[in-house]
Amino acid sequence: MSKYVIGLDFGTNSCRALIADIKDGKEIAGNVFSYPSGYEGVVIDPSDPNLARQNPADYLEGIESSIKGALKDALKNAPGFNPLDVIGIGVDTTGSSPMPVDRHNTPLCFKDKFKKNPNAMVWLWKDHTSFKEAAWITDMAAKIRPHYLSKIGGTYSSEWFWSKILHCKNVDAAVFDEAYSFVEICDWIPSVLAGIKETDEIKRSVCAAGHKAMFNSGWNGLPDEEFLDTLSPGLSVLRNRLYDTAYTAEQKMGNLSPEWAKKLGLSGDTVIAVGAFDAHMGAVGAGVTEGALVKIIGTSTCDIMTSPAARELKDIPGVCGIVNGSVMNGYYGIEAGQSAVGDIFLWFINNLVPEKYGSTQAEKFRNLEEEASKLKPGESGLLALDWNNGNRTILVDVRLTGLLLGQTLHTQPHEIYRALIEATAFGALAIIDRIEEYGVKIKEVINCGGLAVKNPLMMQIYADIIGRPMIISKSEQTPALGAAIFAAIAAGAENGGYGSVLDAQKNMTGTGKTYLPAEGNNIVYKKIYSLYRQMHDAFGTEEWNGNMFNVMKELLSIRDEARRN
Amino acid sequence: MSKYVIGLDFGTNSCRALIADIKDGKEIAGNVFSYPSGYEGVVIDPSDPNLARQNPADYLEGIESSIKGALKDALKNAPGFNPLDVIGIGVDTTGSSPMPVDRHNTPLCFKDKFKKNPNAMVWLWKDHTSFKEAAWITDMAAKIRPHYLSKIGGTYSSEWFWSKILHCKNVDAAVFDEAYSFVEICDWIPSVLAGIKETDEIKRSVCAAGHKAMFNSGWNGLPDEEFLDTLSPGLSVLRNRLYDTAYTAEQKMGNLSPEWAKKLGLSGDTVIAVGAFDAHMGAVGAGVTEGALVKIIGTSTCDIMTSPAARELKDIPGVCGIVNGSVMNGYYGIEAGQSAVGDIFLWFINNLVPEKYGSTQAEKFRNLEEEASKLKPGESGLLALDWNNGNRTILVDVRLTGLLLGQTLHTQPHEIYRALIEATAFGALAIIDRIEEYGVKIKEVINCGGLAVKNPLMMQIYADIIGRPMIISKSEQTPALGAAIFAAIAAGAENGGYGSVLDAQKNMTGTGKTYLPAEGNNIVYKKIYSLYRQMHDAFGTEEWNGNMFNVMKELLSIRDEARRN
Repeated sequence: MSKYVIGLDFGTNSCRALIADIKDGKEIAGNVFSYPSGYEGVVIDPSDPNLARQNPADYLEGIESSIKGALKDALKNAPGFNPLDVIGIGVDTTGSSPMPVDRHNTPLCFKDKFKKNPNAMVWLWKDHTSFKEAAWITDMAAKIRPHYLSKIGGTYSSEWFWSKILHCKNVDAAVFDEAYSFVEICDWIPSVLAGIKETDEIKRSVCAAGHKAMFNSGWNGLPDEEFLDTLSPGLSVLRNRLYDTAYTAEQKMGNLSPEWAKKLGLSGDTVIAVGAFDAHMGAVGAGVTEGALVKIIGTSTCDIMTSPAARELKDIPGVCGIVNGSVMNGYYGIEAGQSAVGDIFLWFINNLVPEKYGSTQAEKFRNLEEEASKLKPGESGLLALDWNNGNRTILVDVRLTGLLLGQTLHTQPHEIYRALIEATAFGALAIIDRIEEYGVKIKEVINCGGLAVKNPLMMQIYADIIGRPMIISKSEQTPALGAAIFAAIAAGAENGGYGSVLDAQKNMTGTGKTYLPAEGNNIVYKKIYSLYRQMHDAFGTEEWNGNMFNVMKELLSIRDEARRN
Repeated sequence: MSKYVIGLDFGTNSCRALIADIKDGKEIAGNVFSYPSGYEGVVIDPSDPNLARQNPADYLEGIESSIKGALKDALKNAPGFNPLDVIGIGVDTTGSSPMPVDRHNTPLCFKDKFKKNPNAMVWLWKDHTSFKEAAWITDMAAKIRPHYLSKIGGTYSSEWFWSKILHCKNVDAAVFDEAYSFVEICDWIPSVLAGIKETDEIKRSVCAAGHKAMFNSGWNGLPDEEFLDTLSPGLSVLRNRLYDTAYTAEQKMGNLSPEWAKKLGLSGDTVIAVGAFDAHMGAVGAGVTEGALVKIIGTSTCDIMTSPAARELKDIPGVCGIVNGSVMNGYYGIEAGQSAVGDIFLWFINNLVPEKYGSTQAEKFRNLEEEASKLKPGESGLLALDWNNGNRTILVDVRLTGLLLGQTLHTQPHEIYRALIEATAFGALAIIDRIEEYGVKIKEVINCGGLAVKNPLMMQIYADIIGRPMIISKSEQTPALGAAIFAAIAAGAENGGYGSVLDAQKNMTGTGKTYLPAEGNNIVYKKIYSLYRQMHDAFGTEEWNGNMFNVMKELLSIRDEARRN
């Protein structure tokens, strides 16, 4: 008789429940729930493009709707499936997406007085309102606690925990004062499923803690009180109401609460695993191994690698973090990422592609892809920077913007589309180069996320630019599958689960199509990449010094050469 | 009884005949003829975007069609009008647009063996196939004849006479060898009307000669034979078959030939004036005076100023030329220009503006303008370079391309449209700054050409950025009116015409609406202009040295400030 696990994946616009067979990872059912609040699930402010919040009520509705939907399908799809054979639930979410809660684990925005207040909601990962606080935290840490920055790439981001909390304190004292604690949604959602009513009892994820909250066992957990009060007097009151221990996702948060068991029709013995971020669990679902970088490509990307904790690992400037256990026990998890990838293409399609490419978004994508695939590398003469949403790695700077150059009076939308794809590939290569410079070899890239499957042009361009095999993961839902895998481990071998991530991966993950670099294309792209790096360093770093006179001219020469051949 | 003059204006896509009353400049009739050859009148080569040629047969057809059409309308519009009261015809054309001809003034492409050969046609001003030859001429002149560069801004352009002839010699010896001479179309068209059958008898325009062919009385006319043979052995054979005298447009080329008089129904006494370029004649039609820069804004712009020949004038690096008499007798004509203005907007509208802004080009323009006019300076955070077709002044470099930066995931087409308008205004200001640096004051700008009339948003942005009154000329057809004015002078006071340009302008030209700078906008735009100049110098000059880290950040600060207010 089969046993099953559920992976719950909370994305930016929707959440998904996936039911997988423990023995072979077969995904027998999945169901998606789109968040009803805000604009496509994101509470925004027209006067401030930096603001992005979420309503946690959407998650509760989403759990019920997506799990029930998936169970219904599982009963249809898998003969003999019984909801009581579900032995565990794992949860992955976006992050850093913290939320103020009271002592009893209730979000402040569930209280009448804060109901409409975005500051009492979830501060979504892509909220950039706290860019000034991020710079302040970086400056202060560099001055008095430089080691705090060493494991997070040297720069504290506005997307992260303390920036958001500090901004909340700066702009909305009422919310800050009322908050007993701030909880990442990757911790809050499993704690709700496990029926935890005391905020202090939540088992916090080491993935969120280490990558986003400057938590490290090397300095006694979270930043010390003196440092917090230097950031803002009084901030330190929070420290005791946060956590001093953090957990890997192989651990158990608890068992499914009776209320939820009843509501969902699952067993009260169902184990709830500690949560983690989508990228880290996605990497596990994609089959992350040493030497392989896992790239989760969606609206933005997350890049995840592992390196054995037993081996010495240098600090890598610009990456989002190096955290022991953030992907799996016994390995450093290295996280990097690009602030916008699919989002750039969507912005372009939705705003700058006329109807001659089609009347729907899907048609436009298809025709752009068809036309763009006829172009040779360099043929358009265009070069773009992929910074429409800032640069997460390796510059860690949200105050950067998009750039396109090389346009003439003949430049066509599909040429720009290709240049935007190339820009994201160059950004990806900059990350790989940085990690390799610090001694971690990257032989291949395992890709997952919607775009990896849907956009073969993009994957071939990635292979040609990155110069390494681009492998597509077998699962199309690697974060949810990763969450399911952790559920199988948290449930334990004694319940039919697994003893370790590597064991579970062997049975539950696999790879699909592989794109290999075309050598001729790689040679041309190497030239263009050196121009991309020049632009990247000139606009993105204070240290760069020089002249840009060569850029347009070299692109024109490359273009002329491409057109001649 | 009124006397009339005809101005013939040969543009890039069409030609126009304008009939004006000599006494007050009243435009009693006009008629446009679109060239039938090539794509919108331009012979192109899909494999080489630099190539742009014209078929001179289109001009002959255009003369007949447009003059006949205008005469027909004049008979309707002006009671008592008699075609025999036309006392002169003036001609302006694009340039430098040279064409190979035989000894008897016949274009080589009229001969069977060269009929389909673009190299035997007119090398249109915007043909950039000779960019390598231009660089070569600049290098050689800098080495052995530096004074040749002093009057043309320091750089010889690929749009100019010798570059095109040298490229012809390099790529098509058959055409070069067969050519007795090369004639600018501003010389050829009036010579045809005057029935000149010997190429040696053409009176060549000092405007074309001085601005484009390095002709200067200071060094005995055209470049010397030794220099020409240094450019390419054998090139000097042409020198004796070109010209050693050049004429201002107040001079008479001849009288209308009997054949043309008969064909057009005009008097054989009709005086044909020496030709000149559209911009220079347009400046006269717009009422150019000391201290006023005339800007002819169309697909590209030409900027024209005058400075009394009696006053010392320094060489101005980067302008297209300083030529005694090129606008009118007794004044230096200073020419500058932008390689693309309207063309950039057209490119954007035709390629990158979706149908939500309208289904026709006109609707899209109207809606973009409406939305863009709601934006405050700096509010979009965008900055563009206006180099989609290279930079004519002050960089004189066709190997430059467009650039847009500052885009986010929220950037809208109308924001980009405004940024493109602003970019062309910054480019215009760079020209004005350069001319003023060399001692020529510019108090105001007189604008003519289609965009000056049709695009009030653009003109207000120009006033705000340039910080000077933007005056719209009364005539909407200033090049044709200027040509008509020169016809009135060439015909002479004895025939009812005028004795000088200034006399004629007093009666025949005027100004219309004026846009004044809004001080608050000018202050913001000064900040953005300094970033434009930084980009301009970094990408456009070899001398610049520095870092671009500030650019995106300052634009974001300006944007945030604009949104707060």
